[in-house]
Amino acid sequence: MAGLFITLEGGDGSGKTTAAIRLTKQLEKEGYTVTYTREPGGVKIAEEIRSVIVDVNNKEMDAKTEALLYAAARRQHLVEKVLPTLKQGGIVLCDRFIDSSLVYQGIGRGLGIDEVYQMNLFATENVLPNLTIFFDVKPEVAIKRVMSNEREVNRLDLESLAFHQSVYEGYLQICTLFPQRIRKIDASLSPDEVYDQVYALVKERL
Amino acid sequence: MAGLFITLEGGDGSGKTTAAIRLTKQLEKEGYTVTYTREPGGVKIAEEIRSVIVDVNNKEMDAKTEALLYAAARRQHLVEKVLPTLKQGGIVLCDRFIDSSLVYQGIGRGLGIDEVYQMNLFATENVLPNLTIFFDVKPEVAIKRVMSNEREVNRLDLESLAFHQSVYEGYLQICTLFPQRIRKIDASLSPDEVYDQVYALVKERL
Repeated sequence: MAGLFITLEGGDGSGKTTAAIRLTKQLEKEGYTVTYTREPGGVKIAEEIRSVIVDVNNKEMDAKTEALLYAAARRQHLVEKVLPTLKQGGIVLCDRFIDSSLVYQGIGRGLGIDEVYQMNLFATENVLPNLTIFFDVKPEVAIKRVMSNEREVNRLDLESLAFHQSVYEGYLQICTLFPQRIRKIDASLSPDEVYDQVYALVKERL
Repeated sequence: MAGLFITLEGGDGSGKTTAAIRLTKQLEKEGYTVTYTREPGGVKIAEEIRSVIVDVNNKEMDAKTEALLYAAARRQHLVEKVLPTLKQGGIVLCDRFIDSSLVYQGIGRGLGIDEVYQMNLFATENVLPNLTIFFDVKPEVAIKRVMSNEREVNRLDLESLAFHQSVYEGYLQICTLFPQRIRKIDASLSPDEVYDQVYALVKERL
């Protein structure tokens, strides 16, 4: 596969979006074709699925339903947006991908990493990122950042600190499972310092 | 598991709904607790997923996205509606279940029965019906029945006759794969004759 597939992982409030927007502008300035996108969503059908997932009224949602919906949104986004860009040799910068499911559903919801991984392989047909950057910041810090933002609160924001703590530990666990692919940065620092680490990692691969 | 889990399978226009409504009334008259329900849908979250699946504007939907959405709706419906009724010893009469995915996505869309079955086991955790009734009627006949009805046309109605033909052949194939569980009735006959066959099969199990 031509192109470069980079995914950004970490809890909400870890600074992924801020760094990604700046990185996209910089890489475009350097002449690269860049598609910046996010999961779940990014294309019409996946956005419709996203709205079912994040709806605060859907409290009865079972953990496996949630995992299947994320995989469905992932599949559609991959086929319609990620793969076409990669085939044309472009860079895809994707906010969340398969690792989010391993961590949030596999560990946070307790479904098990292996079972969620197998089910996701149905969705992705073994497409994995060339590089995954984990934004490492403790959940207490990240949640404070989210709460000070103005965006609307969604169903996952309402989870307990214990849930976010297990997600954080899940991320540390998958960093050791996929040491070649996943690189960790210190996301407790200032936006400028976070960006510099991201930029350095990406430039290594270009 | 207490209770009796019966699923109805076959193409649209095969007469499942007509027979199921009459059967539900009859079994309730005989004193049974019956939950008549349908897939995809049956509970709020599954209905929201259904509306994404059947939306005629979602022409870009990938076959695997579709399969994952059906499995997600199936999971939620199973947990919220099917299992609670069965646990209380009731009869669940469900219009479509896992076999629809094997046939429509596995064969109709060409994803393969095995792959779709494995992914669905994630959703159902090996829960299978006690009895599945296949309403056997050739697609040319069934489609004419659908077109003479007044219900709104959905995305799957717009599929070609060749698609419905492969679905029909898929059903014949899974009848041979699961001969203990799946029983075939002649659904080309009149509503009364179709109902009598359904009723006889169900009474055998009660």
